[in-house]
Amino acid sequence: MPAPMSWLKRLVLGRPFRSDTLGETLLPKWLALPIFASDPLSSVAYATQEILLILSIGGLTYLVLAPWVGLAVAVLLSVVVVSYRQVVKAYPSGGGSYEVASRNLGSHAGLVVAGALMVDYIMTVAVSVASGVDNIISAVPGLNGYRIALDIGFIVVLTAMNLRGLRESGRAFAAPTYLFVVAVLLMIAVGFSRTLAGHAPVAESAGYAIRPEQVGLTGFALIFLLLRSFSSGCTALTGVEAISNGVPAFRKPKAVNAARTMTAMGVIAVVMFGGITALALIAKVHIAENACDLAGFAGQCATDPQRTVISQIGAAVFGGDHAVLFYFLQATTALILILAANTAFNGFPLLASILAKDRYLPRQLHTRGDRLAFSNGIIALALIAAVLIYAFDGSTTRLIQLYILGVFTSFTLCQAGMVRHWNRELAAGTGSRHAIQRSRAINALGATLTAIVLAVVLVTKFTHGAYLVVIAIPALYVMMRAVHRHYTHVREELLPDEESELLPSRVHAIVLVSTLHKPSQRAIAFARATRPDTLTAITVNVDDAETRELQRQWERRGIKIPLKVVESPYREITRPVVAYVKNFARSSPRDVVCIYIPEYVVGRWWENILHNQSSLRLKGRLLFEPGVMVTSVPWQLRSSRRRDLQRVRPLPGDLRRGVTARRS
Amino acid sequence: MPAPMSWLKRLVLGRPFRSDTLGETLLPKWLALPIFASDPLSSVAYATQEILLILSIGGLTYLVLAPWVGLAVAVLLSVVVVSYRQVVKAYPSGGGSYEVASRNLGSHAGLVVAGALMVDYIMTVAVSVASGVDNIISAVPGLNGYRIALDIGFIVVLTAMNLRGLRESGRAFAAPTYLFVVAVLLMIAVGFSRTLAGHAPVAESAGYAIRPEQVGLTGFALIFLLLRSFSSGCTALTGVEAISNGVPAFRKPKAVNAARTMTAMGVIAVVMFGGITALALIAKVHIAENACDLAGFAGQCATDPQRTVISQIGAAVFGGDHAVLFYFLQATTALILILAANTAFNGFPLLASILAKDRYLPRQLHTRGDRLAFSNGIIALALIAAVLIYAFDGSTTRLIQLYILGVFTSFTLCQAGMVRHWNRELAAGTGSRHAIQRSRAINALGATLTAIVLAVVLVTKFTHGAYLVVIAIPALYVMMRAVHRHYTHVREELLPDEESELLPSRVHAIVLVSTLHKPSQRAIAFARATRPDTLTAITVNVDDAETRELQRQWERRGIKIPLKVVESPYREITRPVVAYVKNFARSSPRDVVCIYIPEYVVGRWWENILHNQSSLRLKGRLLFEPGVMVTSVPWQLRSSRRRDLQRVRPLPGDLRRGVTARRS
Repeated sequence: MPAPMSWLKRLVLGRPFRSDTLGETLLPKWLALPIFASDPLSSVAYATQEILLILSIGGLTYLVLAPWVGLAVAVLLSVVVVSYRQVVKAYPSGGGSYEVASRNLGSHAGLVVAGALMVDYIMTVAVSVASGVDNIISAVPGLNGYRIALDIGFIVVLTAMNLRGLRESGRAFAAPTYLFVVAVLLMIAVGFSRTLAGHAPVAESAGYAIRPEQVGLTGFALIFLLLRSFSSGCTALTGVEAISNGVPAFRKPKAVNAARTMTAMGVIAVVMFGGITALALIAKVHIAENACDLAGFAGQCATDPQRTVISQIGAAVFGGDHAVLFYFLQATTALILILAANTAFNGFPLLASILAKDRYLPRQLHTRGDRLAFSNGIIALALIAAVLIYAFDGSTTRLIQLYILGVFTSFTLCQAGMVRHWNRELAAGTGSRHAIQRSRAINALGATLTAIVLAVVLVTKFTHGAYLVVIAIPALYVMMRAVHRHYTHVREELLPDEESELLPSRVHAIVLVSTLHKPSQRAIAFARATRPDTLTAITVNVDDAETRELQRQWERRGIKIPLKVVESPYREITRPVVAYVKNFARSSPRDVVCIYIPEYVVGRWWENILHNQSSLRLKGRLLFEPGVMVTSVPWQLRSSRRRDLQRVRPLPGDLRRGVTARRS
Repeated sequence: MPAPMSWLKRLVLGRPFRSDTLGETLLPKWLALPIFASDPLSSVAYATQEILLILSIGGLTYLVLAPWVGLAVAVLLSVVVVSYRQVVKAYPSGGGSYEVASRNLGSHAGLVVAGALMVDYIMTVAVSVASGVDNIISAVPGLNGYRIALDIGFIVVLTAMNLRGLRESGRAFAAPTYLFVVAVLLMIAVGFSRTLAGHAPVAESAGYAIRPEQVGLTGFALIFLLLRSFSSGCTALTGVEAISNGVPAFRKPKAVNAARTMTAMGVIAVVMFGGITALALIAKVHIAENACDLAGFAGQCATDPQRTVISQIGAAVFGGDHAVLFYFLQATTALILILAANTAFNGFPLLASILAKDRYLPRQLHTRGDRLAFSNGIIALALIAAVLIYAFDGSTTRLIQLYILGVFTSFTLCQAGMVRHWNRELAAGTGSRHAIQRSRAINALGATLTAIVLAVVLVTKFTHGAYLVVIAIPALYVMMRAVHRHYTHVREELLPDEESELLPSRVHAIVLVSTLHKPSQRAIAFARATRPDTLTAITVNVDDAETRELQRQWERRGIKIPLKVVESPYREITRPVVAYVKNFARSSPRDVVCIYIPEYVVGRWWENILHNQSSLRLKGRLLFEPGVMVTSVPWQLRSSRRRDLQRVRPLPGDLRRGVTARRS
């Protein structure tokens, strides 16, 4: 019967998978699109709203500028999509922005990108969950009082699912994404048809006036407002690069298929963003950061929520008879946003694995075995996102201020790296000069635009929270440099030399014995089997009676090797043994001492509390002595047989790496 | 330079002691008295108060019975002291009640005593701290609002001191205890002198009337009230047995000196308790559980505290011109109570060590090395005490309901065990029959009286919180039985046999290699030095490029042993290696496989995150394979040299075991 702990683990983590059911499947385009595009597509759910919110700081006056801001965002989105198509073609290994920046601009730029991406993953969780909950509340306003609880609740569920080893299924991903696209396109189609037919939809907030925070904006102040609005709208671009990290999971020809998927994603995103923005203006959606600035707001402005822009359009378009479509829209919107948050849980381990391979993060993040390392990453991600949501009251608008800076940092450095890449290609003279020059032009445009936006974001968002990102990215950079430096130092210290190849002249075996039982008998037998030059058994005298009993048994059984008693006036184990071994090693420095420690192997977690504590500590301490090796001679207790370690769980991000669990 | 963690540790835990400054000193009687008697003597600070509190439930009417209740407590105290003198003489090894009960009544009774003693330690902390803070507030009433904060604060300080490795100094202990005795005896002397001179002290509460909760008590109800009052007064007996646990720390003749110290302690306790009770009646101290039952109470009865009985007597006796003596009394009272709480932190590890020796608790609690185990015990003790204080609003009176049951459980079983002991002695026919019969009579009287009190306490206190103890003691009993059963099962499973002595026919050595560096060179050299029958190096192919590089180096350096590459499609380490070893072991079950794992030894805690993670996991997994032993071949990185493990900290309770740190 499994121990209670095991039951608990099973309950929380679910049934593990057998290793032989792990396989590899590559993704067709129609499945890759929803898997990688849920994050970029979901951002259209809040991008328009952020543009309108900033413009309305100046009252209704400046909403006429919204189409131009929207257009600028759409153009930028197209440019970035086209730029990243070049990345996909040039770097089909899936390293994405990090790989491009490191290879072309050096490791420093690469690390800045890595830090920016880490911040992105955190913000993807925070913003997507906050916006998802916004849309749930827009459909069910009664839940407004539980906003933060819902936010944290979703993060907890996502964390548990990913710790559990979520078996990602492409089809399960595909459904919500396609349904969301269908719902939004349907809304746009119906909305435009009604407008053309003369029955333009009218938002519930169309009648509200907005009390401007700032009045009579002119000159620089107006430009600044426009730029703020534009940089908020740039949130539509978040997640665009996801496909460039996933090229290896595509079917062949990988790069071509990935590039085509990218184009499809770009077209869908631009159409949805453009349509939503147009309908928001047609239906006259009026919103403000503070509902109390809305003259005519129905309800308590201090406590009641404003509905999201997409839900107001949905209600206006599908209202009345088609209310079921409104709920469908809201459900798919909330679902794709939560799904987008989940992509961060999958993307982070991938990035960590690549960084670990380059020795910027602990090595065990590279090899698959260490679920613990991944778990720590997931918990950290969830915890920071939850703290941010709590600190910013679950406000999507306030959280977005922290989002865009990191995104554009990696865009800019990646595109700049691509320009370098093409320059090098030109210098190398391989391939068609014309095609390369065209690609370079595209990436140069991308780099220039994203650099400008980066500057705009930095200036307009700094005091609104982006300063936190300005602190976080360098901090991550410094940490990763320190890890790398440490690995480099160790590598140098460990360079092979002739001396380490010298054979020790003699081997002295020491068997540690506390009582005479099967484990110590086996340790003695194993030690004798290695035919050492000398063989001694030692015991620490913690209790006189027990020691005498051991000596008696030793004689009775006629064990041929000598038993030495090490005194320990304070009932310690470690210190007397270490002192004994030290003396031994000192007297013959050209020899090696091998200490055999009998160990019980137990099957239940709590049994470890009752056994092997002293030997663990001792082993740890003995390793500090030069010329000493420590051999554990295990004795498997019956309870150890219940351990079945042949099972394996999926790790977050497996699907994106092409690793799937086959149904057995 | 030490790492930051080390600085922090140094700051919190203080400078460690070198092991060679540990020594042994035995205690003279004058030093042993305060060390062991601070707990029993401190209880006179609250025993009288508890008697009066219960009697006043019936109003002022029944206070006339207080002298009789007090007398009964004093008689019982004397009987128990005399009884425990017998224990000290018969069992000078310091096992105390647990040893007496186990040896004479069997392990079940012993475990019940052990459970009762554990509960006692917790309650000693809770009650002593609560009463100490009561007395501080009696001197400085302004602190009343911070009662719980003060309680928890003292517990935190005591915990930190004991985790830090408090260097107990006999003299530091002696001062507060002797000063407390002096203060109380002085108060009694002055109080009686003034009474004889016709100027009897008058307490501030002498004028208060008490609204009885129960009126017109007769027959059974009156007897029940008297019994409740008596069982509350029995709190004066808590800690009496402390000396019987500390006999080994006394100077020779140990038993005689310990018995004499016990007598001195008993006399002092009876005099102080009697004097305080008498003065409380002379000065007409009127208190009630709820201050609002006091007619005439000065101040807000709902929020303002009543002063403790000892402080009211002190104020009455030393009042006016001698106020400085009043503050002196309160200061020493508070100090000795906090000191009494500290004894629990010292006593618990001693008890745990004895229980661990008998395999009722994890073995590592017996050997001295494991500071971690002790620390966990201390933290658990503090945490439970703090929770109880919080749950019972820091009320000494309510906490005491939980205290006495455990105390009298161990008294009764110990005395009953002593009767058995003497019966056996009589049967054996050694020693003077007369003396043995006298001793038996004393212990029989003790057992009978404490058994009656135990029944009274159980009946009168059950609903007032003692039920928690009735749950806790069996729970501890069951836990300790389970631990013992586990150790017994394992012991049986591990009984030596002939088969385990058989030598394996051949030794196959496998060296695990990831890259070719000094640690792996050394591992290969050490493995070759043991001259195994076969020797293979294996590497797991996690990264094709790295594996090829390793093979190239292998050839270039002309290493003579074969290098096998184990494939790992999912970048795992553990599973492929285990599978390889399993196959190997299966093909020759009479042989033994020895796996050599090169390890880095690092000096800073955070370096462990960056290294050895895979090898740790692998080692843990390989131990489950029969016929396999695992050898760690350490390579000491430069940073490992900063580790200095030659230092040792004092453990709580060292002084009581005769271990002291000499000044270097």
